[in-house]
Amino acid sequence: MNFSVDLNCDMGESFGRYQIGFDKEMMDFISSANIACGFHAGDPSIMKHTVQLALEKKIAIGAHPGLPDLMGFGRRNMYLTPEEAYDYVLYQVGALSAFVRAEGGRLRHVKPHGALYNMAAINKDLSRGISEAIYKLDPEIILFGLAGSELIEAGKAAGLQTCSEVFADRTYQADGTLTPRNEPNSVLTDDQKAVDQVIKMVKYDKVGTPAGDIDIKAETICIHGDGEHALSFAQKINKAFEKEGIQRLQHR
Amino acid sequence: MNFSVDLNCDMGESFGRYQIGFDKEMMDFISSANIACGFHAGDPSIMKHTVQLALEKKIAIGAHPGLPDLMGFGRRNMYLTPEEAYDYVLYQVGALSAFVRAEGGRLRHVKPHGALYNMAAINKDLSRGISEAIYKLDPEIILFGLAGSELIEAGKAAGLQTCSEVFADRTYQADGTLTPRNEPNSVLTDDQKAVDQVIKMVKYDKVGTPAGDIDIKAETICIHGDGEHALSFAQKINKAFEKEGIQRLQHR
Amino acid sequence: MNFSVDLNCDMGESFGRYQIGFDKEMMDFISSANIACGFHAGDPSIMKHTVQLALEKKIAIGAHPGLPDLMGFGRRNMYLTPEEAYDYVLYQVGALSAFVRAEGGRLRHVKPHGALYNMAAINKDLSRGISEAIYKLDPEIILFGLAGSELIEAGKAAGLQTCSEVFADRTYQADGTLTPRNEPNSVLTDDQKAVDQVIKMVKYDKVGTPAGDIDIKAETICIHGDGEHALSFAQKINKAFEKEGIQRLQHR
Amino acid sequence: MNFSVDLNCDMGESFGRYQIGFDKEMMDFISSANIACGFHAGDPSIMKHTVQLALEKKIAIGAHPGLPDLMGFGRRNMYLTPEEAYDYVLYQVGALSAFVRAEGGRLRHVKPHGALYNMAAINKDLSRGISEAIYKLDPEIILFGLAGSELIEAGKAAGLQTCSEVFADRTYQADGTLTPRNEPNSVLTDDQKAVDQVIKMVKYDKVGTPAGDIDIKAETICIHGDGEHALSFAQKINKAFEKEGIQRLQHR
Repeated sequence: MNFSVDLNCDMGESFGRYQIGFDKEMMDFISSANIACGFHAGDPSIMKHTVQLALEKKIAIGAHPGLPDLMGFGRRNMYLTPEEAYDYVLYQVGALSAFVRAEGGRLRHVKPHGALYNMAAINKDLSRGISEAIYKLDPEIILFGLAGSELIEAGKAAGLQTCSEVFADRTYQADGTLTPRNEPNSVLTDDQKAVDQVIKMVKYDKVGTPAGDIDIKAETICIHGDGEHALSFAQKINKAFEKEGIQRLQHR
Repeated sequence: MNFSVDLNCDMGESFGRYQIGFDKEMMDFISSANIACGFHAGDPSIMKHTVQLALEKKIAIGAHPGLPDLMGFGRRNMYLTPEEAYDYVLYQVGALSAFVRAEGGRLRHVKPHGALYNMAAINKDLSRGISEAIYKLDPEIILFGLAGSELIEAGKAAGLQTCSEVFADRTYQADGTLTPRNEPNSVLTDDQKAVDQVIKMVKYDKVGTPAGDIDIKAETICIHGDGEHALSFAQKINKAFEKEGIQRLQHR
Repeated sequence: MNFSVDLNCDMGESFGRYQIGFDKEMMDFISSANIACGFHAGDPSIMKHTVQLALEKKIAIGAHPGLPDLMGFGRRNMYLTPEEAYDYVLYQVGALSAFVRAEGGRLRHVKPHGALYNMAAINKDLSRGISEAIYKLDPEIILFGLAGSELIEAGKAAGLQTCSEVFADRTYQADGTLTPRNEPNSVLTDDQKAVDQVIKMVKYDKVGTPAGDIDIKAETICIHGDGEHALSFAQKINKAFEKEGIQRLQHR
Repeated sequence: MNFSVDLNCDMGESFGRYQIGFDKEMMDFISSANIACGFHAGDPSIMKHTVQLALEKKIAIGAHPGLPDLMGFGRRNMYLTPEEAYDYVLYQVGALSAFVRAEGGRLRHVKPHGALYNMAAINKDLSRGISEAIYKLDPEIILFGLAGSELIEAGKAAGLQTCSEVFADRTYQADGTLTPRNEPNSVLTDDQKAVDQVIKMVKYDKVGTPAGDIDIKAETICIHGDGEHALSFAQKINKAFEKEGIQRLQHR
């Protein structure tokens, strides 16, 4: 049997003189780049540069729209109407798609960032606003959302192809949701445990929880591009894939 | 003989709760709307709304990108490299084009705003950056620039169709440039004089200066959409056109 | 018997070229100006100008800090830690106090704006953060908060003098809270009813609710400075005060 | 004979999740911290934290106001009127002084940042706007400016105490101005040469130029707090001071 899976990473999250993330180096280890669009992070010059890098490395390009909150890096919940979500996503995805088009590439996917991603996961109306913006811009774009979330449902209802995302280094609860970050054991700090969790999700569609294994759909795996051992973890997961016969997705 | 000319107006320059301009009412009197893109003015919700209005009124839609200076309304000179100009224009035009596309319309032109427009008029490199961004996004887009300016030259050199802009209520100097705003008589405050100047530019390709009439190319005329008598002046110029047999351009 | 009460109004909420509110005219009808500080509205030039106006008109000057959300005018809830609330309030109040000091005046009060005000009204920790920022800057500053709210409690606990605010044109529920804006009858659109409600609150410390009159503490009354009939309502309430022998507070 | 000199460094230039500079470590090697105020860099939380650090390390605290251009890190020239310069400086210095006051400290100096510093160096009117803002807030504040610049002149004219700044790692021209960054040899990349230049400036009030030594007034020396060898250079210069019997200024 033959396994393949997408590995995605948030990119282009620098801003002006501020640098975050090992974008260039990480591109050797992933198949999809989610590029920030200037609201929670990123600026026009960084967007262009990151699109160029991704095209060079033949990585699939996605937009990574966030809340208009640079000071909070888009990680703070903020009340948005579904219509505002539509407007903010369309603006940001449109801006990124211009850079992709200017470089001769194709925008393949959209993955909302941070608090927008988390709020959408449990909010049907917000998810509908996000999904419709993407569909109206280009119905071929694939929507990335938390596996099992309202965002995945809304994307399908809007007519979009969706991609269920799982996290390498986060633990899961019995109902399939992520353990909240303010609880103990929410993050897998042991690289080997994170690698094992990923392999299990990809090969057996299962993830361990305090109540035993549950089903999970792992179409794309999120790994982090910043922090001290982002690169070493990216290498480890690639080596484990090789050993297990799992292929990183090749996008044309 | 048959005359027709484009009448353009800056639109969508409100922001959040802040309102500027009589966008809806002005649309009955113009043929092209230049819609702000969120840097000097405008926000995603206003952009969507203004695009919808323009489509309803069958007005041609253009992007109106500016400097990243909301506090200064994009009117203060700011040093930009040609590459930054490229990046900022591509970002903004891309964002607006997403709203146009989502509504089933077509982005017809781009007119830079305020200080970006004025700096480009006399700066070859900045104009090249702006022109290339537009060409790379869509070579069919028409570039609006000051008649006789570096921006018009750069647009042509980049392969774009250009449209030479004149101003109804500004006076001209012997070399064809606008009288600077800090000089006396830079603005025609008498509506009739402004109307007469426009008619002369459209019918005879001439404009009066302190040194006598000079040649000018008037492919599009800028009128203002805010201020106390914006609407009454717009009506006056439309009536004068009717009397003189000048048609407002009809965009399909 | 002798009644006097403070009448306050939000001011300085213009931004750059954007104008909101009849600040200058309203100053003849109020005793306290809450001046925006650049986060939800206002900019440094407008802050200076508004401080100068208030000093001319001998109106008490307060700071009106808000959430860092110009696009939403500080009206959208946004998650803040109590520490962030402390930081954002101290920053904004400090900035405004510099303009007051430079003009030879004195900062008398602070009233949080919009969503920050509303969130604080029911959030003890956020209210503590806000109150401590003010106390540490200057323990003489008076804190304005919704009558009966957590913010008033927290202000007292921090050692501040507080001022309980009531609204002329909002209706109240049986528990003393404001009827939410999305419910019918949340706003008194009839000027006379609003005036009557204010007189009752000031003279008898009572307000009508669907369940009959309840006690309320009315130390300052908020009236609006923008909207079509802001000025005419301000005049009406001043006339009613005169007739009823209620004095507008005179600040030295 | 006894020499002492101030060593200053720009600090608090992180923003939100973005980190720049080795603020904590650098504080052991300097006597004055110039703390960013939220326009070109810095945010309220970082301002508070940096003020606390400086107080712990007994370093003099200064405000480091910049242009409203986070994307350009305040390094791009932008047209400001003298009045806008006054407003922007007063706003930022006021905000920082609130954090200093809340922590029980004293704001000792102000040093404009980047393009604002450079524009003011050669612009009398802009320098007057900056100087008056500081004087009106607190006439005891010391103004830092480029040695021999218009800013130093304007500060004196406004009644402020001034402090003439020199740069350890920049070369000087025969007229006492800095060699522009776009010319070769504008920066001393050899640490030893930079140390030697500083010693000469402090002990002999001289600096070398292509036309020979000229007089220079070195009351404070700027060293950089970011970049790969910021810390090692800070150590070198401190060691050289020890060997040469130069004392770092002690602020009470």
